[in-house]
Amino acid sequence: MNGLMMDMPLLISGLIKHADRNHGDTEIVSKTVEGEIQRYTYREAHARARRLAKVLQGLGVKMSDRVGTLAWNGYRHYELYYAISGIGAVINTINPRLFPEQITYISNHAENMTLFFDLSFVPLVEKLAPQLKTVQHYVLMTDRAHMPAVTTIPNLRCYEDLMAKEDERFEWPSFDERTAAALCYTSGTTGNPKGVLYGHRSTVLHAYGGALPDALNLSACDVVLPVVPMFHANAWSLPYACTLVGAKMVFPGPHLDGKSVYELIEQEQVTMSAGVPTVWLMLLQHLAAHQLKFSTLNRTVIGGSACPPAMIRAFQDEYSVQVFHAWGMTEMSPLGTVGSLKAKQTVLGKEARYAVQAKQGRGIFGVEMKIVDETGMELPWDGKRFGDLMVKGPWIASGYLKGEGGNPLQDGWFPTGDVATIDADGYLQITDRSKDVIKSGGEWISSIDLENVAVAHPAVQEAAVIGVPHPKWDERPIVVVVKKASQEVSRAELLKFYEGKVAKWSMPEDVVFVAELPHTATGKLSKLTLRQQLKDYKLP
Amino acid sequence: MNGLMMDMPLLISGLIKHADRNHGDTEIVSKTVEGEIQRYTYREAHARARRLAKVLQGLGVKMSDRVGTLAWNGYRHYELYYAISGIGAVINTINPRLFPEQITYISNHAENMTLFFDLSFVPLVEKLAPQLKTVQHYVLMTDRAHMPAVTTIPNLRCYEDLMAKEDERFEWPSFDERTAAALCYTSGTTGNPKGVLYGHRSTVLHAYGGALPDALNLSACDVVLPVVPMFHANAWSLPYACTLVGAKMVFPGPHLDGKSVYELIEQEQVTMSAGVPTVWLMLLQHLAAHQLKFSTLNRTVIGGSACPPAMIRAFQDEYSVQVFHAWGMTEMSPLGTVGSLKAKQTVLGKEARYAVQAKQGRGIFGVEMKIVDETGMELPWDGKRFGDLMVKGPWIASGYLKGEGGNPLQDGWFPTGDVATIDADGYLQITDRSKDVIKSGGEWISSIDLENVAVAHPAVQEAAVIGVPHPKWDERPIVVVVKKASQEVSRAELLKFYEGKVAKWSMPEDVVFVAELPHTATGKLSKLTLRQQLKDYKLP
Repeated sequence: MNGLMMDMPLLISGLIKHADRNHGDTEIVSKTVEGEIQRYTYREAHARARRLAKVLQGLGVKMSDRVGTLAWNGYRHYELYYAISGIGAVINTINPRLFPEQITYISNHAENMTLFFDLSFVPLVEKLAPQLKTVQHYVLMTDRAHMPAVTTIPNLRCYEDLMAKEDERFEWPSFDERTAAALCYTSGTTGNPKGVLYGHRSTVLHAYGGALPDALNLSACDVVLPVVPMFHANAWSLPYACTLVGAKMVFPGPHLDGKSVYELIEQEQVTMSAGVPTVWLMLLQHLAAHQLKFSTLNRTVIGGSACPPAMIRAFQDEYSVQVFHAWGMTEMSPLGTVGSLKAKQTVLGKEARYAVQAKQGRGIFGVEMKIVDETGMELPWDGKRFGDLMVKGPWIASGYLKGEGGNPLQDGWFPTGDVATIDADGYLQITDRSKDVIKSGGEWISSIDLENVAVAHPAVQEAAVIGVPHPKWDERPIVVVVKKASQEVSRAELLKFYEGKVAKWSMPEDVVFVAELPHTATGKLSKLTLRQQLKDYKLP
Repeated sequence: MNGLMMDMPLLISGLIKHADRNHGDTEIVSKTVEGEIQRYTYREAHARARRLAKVLQGLGVKMSDRVGTLAWNGYRHYELYYAISGIGAVINTINPRLFPEQITYISNHAENMTLFFDLSFVPLVEKLAPQLKTVQHYVLMTDRAHMPAVTTIPNLRCYEDLMAKEDERFEWPSFDERTAAALCYTSGTTGNPKGVLYGHRSTVLHAYGGALPDALNLSACDVVLPVVPMFHANAWSLPYACTLVGAKMVFPGPHLDGKSVYELIEQEQVTMSAGVPTVWLMLLQHLAAHQLKFSTLNRTVIGGSACPPAMIRAFQDEYSVQVFHAWGMTEMSPLGTVGSLKAKQTVLGKEARYAVQAKQGRGIFGVEMKIVDETGMELPWDGKRFGDLMVKGPWIASGYLKGEGGNPLQDGWFPTGDVATIDADGYLQITDRSKDVIKSGGEWISSIDLENVAVAHPAVQEAAVIGVPHPKWDERPIVVVVKKASQEVSRAELLKFYEGKVAKWSMPEDVVFVAELPHTATGKLSKLTLRQQLKDYKLP
């Protein structure tokens, strides 16, 4: 027997309809590529998204067709999020920082029939267009005044010209909530990018989960600056979750340097922001250099890669900005865990609280987790044993577009490729990527733990720990270090610095100083490249 | 094309599994019917719910079977919520304050095959048992020591005896998320009660929506006291939403007098509570009489009937407890709107903020609303025009059990039976039940507005406004008043008190003083009975 409740699909269009109706005059502010600040309301955004839906239909976009974007965080990208998914088509947000051949691969694999792109990417698209086999329409996300006089892009259209030809009399269609809505490619360090295909149901459930008090804690009183890009796993759901609650949104456009981000936070009275550690590092350096403080920012969510404990301290102790360490994956929509405290932890001493916050947080309802050993046996949640992390839930991928990589699931669980501990309170701590874990004398050593110690040293700018072959112990860890400009530290000093901070048997064997560390297109440390660079290295 | 996300049903068992895993040592505290305080954790509650699932199966309860409860807010009732729904059966929480013939009607209509009940209700069940045609098993929710020595209840079983015979090795089954989970009857003032049948999907979505920052704002840092009964529309989702976030719960048992509630709040360091105005009135009176303050309570949600503005002021001004005025219906699971402020309102002056808070709040995402005139035409959200309120959403009823009352929907919308205004910010204000609205000279007069003025008078305990026939204006309002003990106010003084507070044409024509006002079994003012009592009344 079924319940007697209305059978209404969870659709992305429902989010913007709700914001229009209930938060019609709340603002969406964008620092544009063209330079100026653009501001409008949810009501106007919804009207323009409806107009854009008609533009898309005019371009021949139908249910399930893929539409690509190469764009920063801004209002036109926001309109595309809602218009494309709203008509049942699929938005494929492509990371413009990828290598050109990866972008080409993604667009061809996704079979994007239309490509929308920001002014910054005209040269890129000019270069790529001959290889983008499926794209029939190129639309530049700008107005007539900013259109290039000459271009090799075939049949280039102007976004605002197309918009001007349509009106906003449009009703969002209804369809099955499992319908595909958005497509993000994971940029692995090996192999081709793989397409993660989100549905309307997964996106709306994820927005509910993300807005919860112990997750991103979003309300109509917030002013939210998504620094995390809209081409990076849906900007961690913010364009959806902020719309769900009616928070004011501030889109930063292309400039994410410390000065630009700080000025936008102050001008727009931002209360909450979210991004990767690299961006926050630039912001903290700007604040320190100019002795600035925040007047409205009260919290920030940090994820994408592990947040160094020193960064948590700097935000909280020096700037009274609460830090929420988060973890997720493109395959998880992406939110998995957020490091909000429980009642019993709020009364702990500062150091004990910081120890909790250094972990990646606990699972949002909707995300199930388990850790398993090499035989697949489940391990206890004791904060000590570490194993391969597996996840399950309605906003977690069951596979990749076109069956790429076969069926990733194991017994219904998605293997994250991360190695982690989980403590008795459910707090996850990522200790490694499974391919980066160092196996020494039968024990696993966490490279992230060792990196955290190194970056806590005042002379260390960045550090990477990798395993190198060892005749007796199989592998031993070494730490590869970039020193801060005009700071000095010796090998012996740094090794000494580890004493008492990690177990003796997991101490690095050596320190290698380098001028810079290799990173992937998404800004993550590439240990694969690092291991290749150091393939001739020998332990002393 | 569908998204490639895991196809996992939203099930109620998922809530308690999540709480066990992530909040295993968080407490659930109950003031029991037997008198003492019982405390255990989510982990223990989950273990006992699994044990209870086996008890139910042992009693022959299968998918979709209905199981009735007559019980206060307590841990055994909580276990029944999860065990019954968890195995795919349906929990029918019956309001023990209804007339015995209504309880009989409900249990027979629901075809409850088993009835669980608290010790308080032994005499009631002894009286009703001969009429409860479908009930095969009676289970008293207590231990062996408290079982009655002699009873006429056939084949009476002891809850703890049944539990002791089972173990907790039980896996929750998986099934379609639309499966029925819970059944609540609405107690209208006319006709038979009608059964609202919730599903797993609607219940889980409602718990997500209810936990949001701008709704009940529930987190793992909260200690929540659900004063609203678990037999009253799922205690406004608290047993589900608190479990979703891992909040500590405090169940008050049968004693809801000011002293009992206050002591429990202080002892257990409650941060949030929820209930109807009547209970809060008793609590405020107790605080005033003994000059007490709250040490941890920071907010309270008030709904069920309109919260008098004076009560909002008392909580906020005198006790620093933030009030959230809420509105919903049994047919809405029940949450519809919550009166949390928006950013622009937090900076308003106190009086302007209080004016916003006096309204019933704005829609949670998942609830669509509209107001229509007598022809069904939609009215603007201007805070002035009032019309029949219609709602739509995935946790709103599409009908009643066994098709009772036909198809209530109009064009896919559920007519609430309330008359309301909605302002440009989406804040709802209920002005009347549609059957109570007073139509005078072609204009509608809100009885609730006039009642709010009366109860703001220091000598008035309670007031009800009804329309009485008038030869020229069709109807005119009169106010029926219960004076406070040892307080005096005359007819002329009270009519004078309205001057300047309401429009001239909506002023009450007369004041009628009575010793008490009639209420329904759920504690709501019964205007139907009042109109019958005053059927011979003539305007002066």
